[in-house]
Amino acid sequence: MVVSLSRRGDVEPFHAMDVLAEANRLKAKGVPVVSMAVGQPSDPAPAGVRQAATHALKMGRIGYTDALGLAGLREAIAQHYADHYGLAVSPGRIAVTTGSSAAFNLAFLAMFDPGDRVAIAAPGYPAYRNIMAALGIEIVEIELDGDAYLHAEHLKAAHRERKLKGVLFASPANPTGAIIPADELSALVTTAQELGIAVISDEIYHRLAYAAPDTTALACGPDVTVINSFSKYYCMTGWRIGWMVLPEPLVRPVERIAQSLYISPPELSQIAAIEAFKATAELEAVKARYAGNRQLLMKRLPELGFTLAAPMDGAFYAFCDVTRHTNDSMAFARKMLAEAYVAATPGRDFDPLQGHRAMRFSYAGSHDEMVEAMMRIERWLR
Amino acid sequence: MVVSLSRRGDVEPFHAMDVLAEANRLKAKGVPVVSMAVGQPSDPAPAGVRQAATHALKMGRIGYTDALGLAGLREAIAQHYADHYGLAVSPGRIAVTTGSSAAFNLAFLAMFDPGDRVAIAAPGYPAYRNIMAALGIEIVEIELDGDAYLHAEHLKAAHRERKLKGVLFASPANPTGAIIPADELSALVTTAQELGIAVISDEIYHRLAYAAPDTTALACGPDVTVINSFSKYYCMTGWRIGWMVLPEPLVRPVERIAQSLYISPPELSQIAAIEAFKATAELEAVKARYAGNRQLLMKRLPELGFTLAAPMDGAFYAFCDVTRHTNDSMAFARKMLAEAYVAATPGRDFDPLQGHRAMRFSYAGSHDEMVEAMMRIERWLR
Repeated sequence: MVVSLSRRGDVEPFHAMDVLAEANRLKAKGVPVVSMAVGQPSDPAPAGVRQAATHALKMGRIGYTDALGLAGLREAIAQHYADHYGLAVSPGRIAVTTGSSAAFNLAFLAMFDPGDRVAIAAPGYPAYRNIMAALGIEIVEIELDGDAYLHAEHLKAAHRERKLKGVLFASPANPTGAIIPADELSALVTTAQELGIAVISDEIYHRLAYAAPDTTALACGPDVTVINSFSKYYCMTGWRIGWMVLPEPLVRPVERIAQSLYISPPELSQIAAIEAFKATAELEAVKARYAGNRQLLMKRLPELGFTLAAPMDGAFYAFCDVTRHTNDSMAFARKMLAEAYVAATPGRDFDPLQGHRAMRFSYAGSHDEMVEAMMRIERWLR
Repeated sequence: MVVSLSRRGDVEPFHAMDVLAEANRLKAKGVPVVSMAVGQPSDPAPAGVRQAATHALKMGRIGYTDALGLAGLREAIAQHYADHYGLAVSPGRIAVTTGSSAAFNLAFLAMFDPGDRVAIAAPGYPAYRNIMAALGIEIVEIELDGDAYLHAEHLKAAHRERKLKGVLFASPANPTGAIIPADELSALVTTAQELGIAVISDEIYHRLAYAAPDTTALACGPDVTVINSFSKYYCMTGWRIGWMVLPEPLVRPVERIAQSLYISPPELSQIAAIEAFKATAELEAVKARYAGNRQLLMKRLPELGFTLAAPMDGAFYAFCDVTRHTNDSMAFARKMLAEAYVAATPGRDFDPLQGHRAMRFSYAGSHDEMVEAMMRIERWLR
């Protein structure tokens, strides 16, 4: 047999995706699974988005676009920064990407070489760690250890120990939903820049904060790489469409890499996404439902013995300490799916060290599903 | 300024995409450019494909799928191997990917580590070289030097010089259109396996051969990684949807990497692609038009001083020696676009050493466009 298997390909699975695959297998057999595993709105994309796609399908060919995306979409995204944040951003700094997934991969490739050290918070989004591992970047996990979010002091301490080339953080965060307050965000970015550390700000859960307004790291200066997506607030997960705002010197390197690695993002999704910014009324109604789900889970999860490990400020996740039930959240999640038909994500995805003590519940589903899931878990725990 | 720029991000641009971007800028200004630069059918996807997408848009949410793709699409692809090649392939070995672009990236990451040597033919598809460079793979370019395609002797000679970990070839090839005859393909794969070299066979131009029937490298054994796509024959470029057939041991590594790097391919494209295999009558009519374009270009290009550098057996490309006009095909292509409004791709994309002597013309456009392009070039050369 002549099958070549690389060492770098030996990355962790994204356990949430494995749970999704198992949930899909059960559903295909007719099992009525409620999925709280994957961060995915149960609503379809806004009507205007779907209409634009339907129209484009009628009109003819769906082809390659410029590697950085359709001019009209780049302009719409730039306009969004003016409208939502009051910030002037040139469309020339926008790169449309095949979901934020492509944005992370492109940013990592364009910014970091093998062996470079990049800090992330633990718990955090597992794909950060897995993509960086595949690309030979040395990951420096900063354990938050009770803190809700990464702040300047964390970064200074980590940099003292091992010189960092970059830092990547998310606010609102996955899996915790924690939001970095505006002044802390500003201090974090300023500190990074003083230390010569390049900043990537993951803002894919913007517009999903339940108390404070959104602050973009872009407000702290033009050197920050911002990553965002149409998947979450805009309900467009399966369309695979996101974007980056890049510092000028990174635009051309990202374009060059994207030309070969992606050719271009899916054109239909690009055409449709232009309409997403006009769908605020529809999307705010969806967000109001998340807010209702959040209220329910803030009450019910602790009642069921799942202690909230973070404040649920934004996004649509509850990150819970599950040590009252188990010391192995992976086995627990598997058992809960098999027996209670409720899918949730084991903490291992988000934190290799402390994750066995935790689990993430996504509340992006319908309210009825949330009520049903809590009932099933309650019955099952008895 | 704290902008981090990696060394590995310093890959070549995909010049065809730069030409496309420039052509798009001109078109936006109202200039009637004829594009022969990008390998992209001018027909839309088949009616059944577009209908399936329209229906899915009506039905509701477009979401994440399993990282390896929808079960129905994996089954349809497996069935295609039975129907088209008479080969039994398990759906479990199929990975649906975000275009062949994602397939190459995933195959390279799962199969090769930094420093591993992988052979490709020059001229060849530039993204091979650029993706491998970004991933730290050492590229061994085998100059075909007048030969139409890679054969076993090339591989033996290259391996003697520098031990190879893998080899990647395409038949029909881009940019030449050359096809490796069945017995030569079998000898090439067998030789690779005897030498312990892993094989990746790029078959994205299958069903676009004008003389011989398609032979898949899969027929030579289950250890070969085959990459294919819905972009070319199936007219679905902008949908970003392709697939791999993997040796069993590679399935799980590819799934794990795909979970983090891509989450899943675009669902709408997956749903639609299931219908593509049923559209043979429609697609054969498109292919008949390419055959007409091919006849035209086989006659006209040499008349205009563009010597065919390969036999035009398949795909939809004419690869020409342009030394009667220029020794700098890059400048020549730029000038031809600016003055004759015909976009074609400089050979540099395909061959860093000899490419300045060559140019690639794609004949996937309409027949009228091809006639018009030849007339414009003729006028312009006078």
